[in-house]
This record gives sequence, C-alpha cells and structure tokens, in this order.
Amino acid sequence: MLQSQLFTKTSKDAPKDEVSINAKLLSRGGFVDKTMAGVYSILPLGNLVLSKIENIVRQELNAIGAQELLMPALQPKEIWKKTGRWNDLDVLFKVTSRFKSEYALGPTHEEVLVPVAQKFISSYKDMPISVYQIQTKFRDEARAKSGLLRGREFRMKDLYSFHTDEQDLDEYYQKATKAYQNIFVRLGLNSILTEASGGTFSKYSHEFQVEIPTGEDVIFICKKCNYGVNKEISKDGKCPKCLNIGEQLKTSEVGNIFKLNTKYSKPFDFMFSDDKGEKQFVIMGCYGIGTTRALGTIVEVHNDKDGIIWPKAVSPYDVHLLSLQPDDKTVRMETDKIYKALQKGHHTVLYDDRDVRPGVKFADSDLIGIPSRIVISKKTLDKQSVEIKERRSGKVEIIKIQNLKL
Amino acid sequence: MLQSQLFTKTSKDAPKDEVSINAKLLSRGGFVDKTMAGVYSILPLGNLVLSKIENIVRQELNAIGAQELLMPALQPKEIWKKTGRWNDLDVLFKVTSRFKSEYALGPTHEEVLVPVAQKFISSYKDMPISVYQIQTKFRDEARAKSGLLRGREFRMKDLYSFHTDEQDLDEYYQKATKAYQNIFVRLGLNSILTEASGGTFSKYSHEFQVEIPTGEDVIFICKKCNYGVNKEISKDGKCPKCLNIGEQLKTSEVGNIFKLNTKYSKPFDFMFSDDKGEKQFVIMGCYGIGTTRALGTIVEVHNDKDGIIWPKAVSPYDVHLLSLQPDDKTVRMETDKIYKALQKGHHTVLYDDRDVRPGVKFADSDLIGIPSRIVISKKTLDKQSVEIKERRSGKVEIIKIQNLKL
Repeated sequence: MLQSQLFTKTSKDAPKDEVSINAKLLSRGGFVDKTMAGVYSILPLGNLVLSKIENIVRQELNAIGAQELLMPALQPKEIWKKTGRWNDLDVLFKVTSRFKSEYALGPTHEEVLVPVAQKFISSYKDMPISVYQIQTKFRDEARAKSGLLRGREFRMKDLYSFHTDEQDLDEYYQKATKAYQNIFVRLGLNSILTEASGGTFSKYSHEFQVEIPTGEDVIFICKKCNYGVNKEISKDGKCPKCLNIGEQLKTSEVGNIFKLNTKYSKPFDFMFSDDKGEKQFVIMGCYGIGTTRALGTIVEVHNDKDGIIWPKAVSPYDVHLLSLQPDDKTVRMETDKIYKALQKGHHTVLYDDRDVRPGVKFADSDLIGIPSRIVISKKTLDKQSVEIKERRSGKVEIIKIQNLKL
Repeated sequence: MLQSQLFTKTSKDAPKDEVSINAKLLSRGGFVDKTMAGVYSILPLGNLVLSKIENIVRQELNAIGAQELLMPALQPKEIWKKTGRWNDLDVLFKVTSRFKSEYALGPTHEEVLVPVAQKFISSYKDMPISVYQIQTKFRDEARAKSGLLRGREFRMKDLYSFHTDEQDLDEYYQKATKAYQNIFVRLGLNSILTEASGGTFSKYSHEFQVEIPTGEDVIFICKKCNYGVNKEISKDGKCPKCLNIGEQLKTSEVGNIFKLNTKYSKPFDFMFSDDKGEKQFVIMGCYGIGTTRALGTIVEVHNDKDGIIWPKAVSPYDVHLLSLQPDDKTVRMETDKIYKALQKGHHTVLYDDRDVRPGVKFADSDLIGIPSRIVISKKTLDKQSVEIKERRSGKVEIIKIQNLKL
C-alpha cells in the first residue's frame, strides 16, 4: 500500500475529548474515528488489525469444533420478555418501528439462539455442540470514556455451548479456557484467569484480565496459583484456591466465560430426551471476547511515548518501507524494487512514498507502530545498504541490500 | 465436516409463513432461520456461502483500489438532521437511549462517512479515493415477505468514491460498473445493467438486475444494446440508447450505483482546494451490493424441484460425500480414507456419516445443493468404484477409486 494513497493521515494531536491511551493513539494514527461517545468507525488501518484479531479468534474456536453463524441485532420484544430481560437489563437499547412494533438491539444473543437451537437439538445424541458468531453488539452504557474498551456499539465474538449434563459442560469449559488462553497469547496479551461474579447472567464466571495502568477493574492475583479473583467478589484479596493474599492489580477484561446451566433453557422450555428417553433441560455455557475491546487493550499494553508497537500477529502491515528521497530517481527505483520483492515474498508493506521531511516519516512510522521499518536513503544506498529498525527494541542495523530477507 | 455433527438439520417443510423460493429452500436446508419478518439468522451452512460471496466482493473491490473500513450502525441524530433525512427517510429506524439521546440505525452511511472523509481530504491531490465496508444495515421496510431479498436487517457492501470533478467520477463509475459485472459473473448471476431512478438518493442511477420469475421489479431489456431500463422511469419500454422497444422482464435488483455529485458534500460543506488553490465541493459516487440479498437471489436463480444448486464459487462445501452404509466397517474405512484424501487435496467436504436411510441422504443432498456428490456403498466398493453425481446436470458416473481426482 502506498502511504500517499492511504485514506487516512496521522495527526499530531488527539481529539480533545479522548482521555484513554488507546483512543488517543488509535485516533492520531488514523486507525479509528470517533462518531460519538462509545461509537467508532474502524478506518482501513484499524480494519486490517481487527480482521487479524478476528481471524485468530476464528481459528482457535474452529479448532475446538465450534461452528460459525451470524445472528441478527434486531430482535423481537417477545423473546426478551420471556427471560425477563426486557425490563431487567438496563443497557438494553429499544427500537420502535414506524409500524409500532418494539425491538431489542442485541447486547447478547441467548434469546435469539435458544429458539434456533431448540429446532435442531432434541436428543442427547445431538450434544455436545457449540456455535459462535463475530458480530456487532449494542449496549446503552452510562460511561463510555475508555475508547475502544467500553463501547455503546462494539464487535464481539460470542460462543454458546449445549450439553446433556454439568460434567460435559465442565469439560467444554476447560477446552474453551484453553482456546481463550491460546487466543490471548497470539494477540500479545498476558491474560490472567480470574474468578468473578456472573452479573445478571450467571452466578459464577471467569474473566480473562489484562494488567493496564488505567484499567477499570481491580483484581487480586495469586502468583503461586497463577489465578486471579475480582475485587468485586473478594474484598479481602484471598486466592480462591490457596487462600493466600494476592497482589492487587488494575486490569481490563478481554474475555469472559459463564456456566449458564439451565438459566436460558428453562424460560424457553428447551429440553432433550436422555438415553433413557426422559426429558431433561439442556445445560448451556457462554463465552465472550470483545474483538474491538481486544484491539484497544493491545494498544494500552503495547505502546511507548512515540506511539503504538503492534505485536507481529496483528500488525496492519508486516513492514513499513520509508523512502527518504522519493523524488530522487535512484532512491525511487531501489525502493520500488524492494517493495515489489517484499510483496512477492508474501510480506504486506506500507510504503511511505510521500513527499514530506524524513522527520515526519520517522514520527509517523513510530506512531503507526509496524514492527519492522526499512529506510531507503541516498546515504546508505551509496554503500548498497539499507537501514532496518525494529520498532519494539529500537535496534538499528545497516544491511547490504543483497542480504535483505525478502 | 461430519454431517452428524452439523448444528442444523434439514426439514421436509418450510415454515408456513414463508412464500418466497429463497426463504423456503434456505430454511428447509438449514441455511437460515427466520427471527421475525425481514430478519434472519444466517446458520453455519449459510454463513459459509455468505463468507464466500463477501470475499468475492472484497477481492473485486480491492482490485479497483478501494480500501475497506467499518462504520457504526448507531449514528447521532445531528448528522441525519443536517442532510434532512432524519425526517425524510421513511425507512429510518430511530433509537432512543435511556439517557434520552436519539440515534439513527444506519440504513446507509453517507452521513457518517462524509465527516470522516472531510478530515483526510482537503486537496485535489487527495483524490480520487474510494472506501467501502461490508456491514449490517437496518431499514424499517413496510413489506418484508421476499425472504432474503428484502430485509429489515441485512448485510450490504457499500462503496463510496471521492473526486475533483464529474469526469473523474465518470471514469470511476465505469470502473465500478466493470467490477460489479465481474462480481455477479463470479456469483453465478446474469446481471443486466439497467437505467433507473435515484429514489431519495440521487437523480439518476444504474441498477444491476437479475431475471427471476417472482421479482419485485419490472424492466425492459434491449437485446441489441444489452441494456435495461426500469419500468418506473420508462412506461413505454424504449431503450435509452437506441429507442427500440425492449422485452419486459420480472427482475430483482442485486446492486446499484449512484452519481451523488455534491448531494452530500454540500450539507457538510465538504470542500477541497483545486490546483489553482480555489475551494470546490467534493464530487461523490456511491455503489451498493446487498450480500444477503445476493445469497437469496442466487437461490432464486439456481434451484430445481429438489432443492438448491449452488454455483461452485459460493457452495458451502466443494463435495458432498455420502456413506450409504456407515455401520459397515469396510464402507466406513473407505469413506474415511476418501474424506481425508479430499481434504488433503484442499477440497472442503460435507461427509454424510449419519445413520439414516440412503433415500433420506439423497434427498438431503439434493436440497443442500453441493455441486459434486460422491456416493460410497458396498455395491460399488465391490468393484473398487464409487458413484459421482453432478448436482446441476444430474449426470452420474461410476469411477474406479484409483481414478478419483482428489
């Protein structure tokens, strides 16, 4: 991609109303644009990162046999009345049609999915089974000041599993936990499995928390058990496993998993025939990862004073190629040649071909945060060399062009 | 994918309230589930098809240099007031927050995109440029009885282009037309470029119409010019190019393109400096394809009395592998072997391993509509052979296993 043709431009200053690091850096870098509090456009650079995040999520969930589907945001009032959440869920957005019907704007999808699952699951032989979607959710949040960490509209992966008994749910819950840990490792996030309350959803749950200085959550982490507990359910900080007092951390939640048991199968009378032909309620689990929130969290964790430092697996491009004298014929020719060779080697490249000062290019490159930078200038070309800089370590190397790994 | 583990099951009867062919077949095959009028869940089989459709759209738009982004559905009232569409657009869904703010639920995205584009486009040097998204749209439609052809919630690709003058817009409009024609060819849709009214959006426009017997639109097609005109703007059926009377057809629209000119740049005062340093309004074009509507249209075109006949490029799987005696050890072993060999050869396979009668398997296979069927049975295995059936032609071949193209 030629940077001169990129839809977005960087800016020196973040919008004045942004307070979070993720929103400031993502806005300045041209990754997102704020439409209103808690609602963002994900611009082309941001969309490249988001697609990578969502594909990692997809791969790890497909690996545990979950099947992807896509449920609607617009949902009939009746199904929300059935579970009592039409009145009980304060963040539920309600829509009135010009034909007077009322709809919910999906903040989660148990109410839509259970009636669908009911059509296909009737016997113990139909389980275990799990489905997920990566889709846009809506929640009428009171506070939406943390950039992409808490949105009124946001992207989320929600997985739902169906089981004959609690033991089968437990087994899948362990599998999902492992899949989540794999996902967060691949996203460059050091997640802490944390015991938590289930909110309005479930009695107990687990969260995957990531330490960030401005996190909205507080947890106690037990280093011995490598296990956290949310301060909301443990004011004394005792580890639920060994009862030692944990270390207090500020964190942000990137995922959560719930044992729903029969919470949603009961109101819909969602039953199956067991191996003795007797009717039983289906046991359910649900598992969420906010993918736009993960994007924001990655930025909160991976940045320095100059900008973002993307982990390789989610970087919008593999290489940032900077031509310092784009008007010089030799520099232009050599840079074009390296650009093409990198692409041929299946590297994605952002090529800064803009007619601006080198200082501007370096600052923009630091801000945008692509892991590897290759700088082409007359000075090094005279020695048949280019400069390579690693964004994270700041390590600079001068390499002969013939030795470039393309 | 083992069919015994597929989330969905086929059904003999379509839901009673479905009248359209696409909704009947897609529901019976387990591709979609109706949540309410005009709102569907896209189930795993349907999601595989939709992903393929959306990736074809993505490839052809990337090829004409458009950059993908993702804009929000929840949009502030103010921007819709600015263009007058808060009051004028009858299909606009409105949402009221519990904090009293009012929002629009995006039926299209000019109002969101123009203020974003305004931040990055200020000079003639910044154009031409184009961006698109594949995203969920909401329209409070009066009638929603055509299955996936007319939804209250639906997936859409919307592309927007920005230009310095009308000539540049004309050139891009031609490029987009060609890209659209490529897309529809790849989707197995014979599209007719049709002159049409711009509705509330624009004065003139072009539609891409596909002939289907139950289509909601009527066009006149001029065979000589290979050009259509929508009956809405030409009651006499005269070809806009050669003035011959065209043949009347019932059709369904799968795409449309509009020259917006300054319709949306004016209300937002979206201007650029031309090469003489003078301020001018930005010229815009917009280009839509409903991807869920395309899914429905493909089914309307490609079906017979037994079910769907997917074009290869959008089929949920490449091969439907039927084991007629799944309990027979030899049949099971041979089918497993062919299943693995097909997957190794990068074919996607739906493997019917279910313990049901052959007649049920054949009927389900016809309904689901995967282009190639391989049938494994004791009878043919005795001759080291399998049966191959082409869904579209019905052509059956008995082939030696060693000659199978895997």
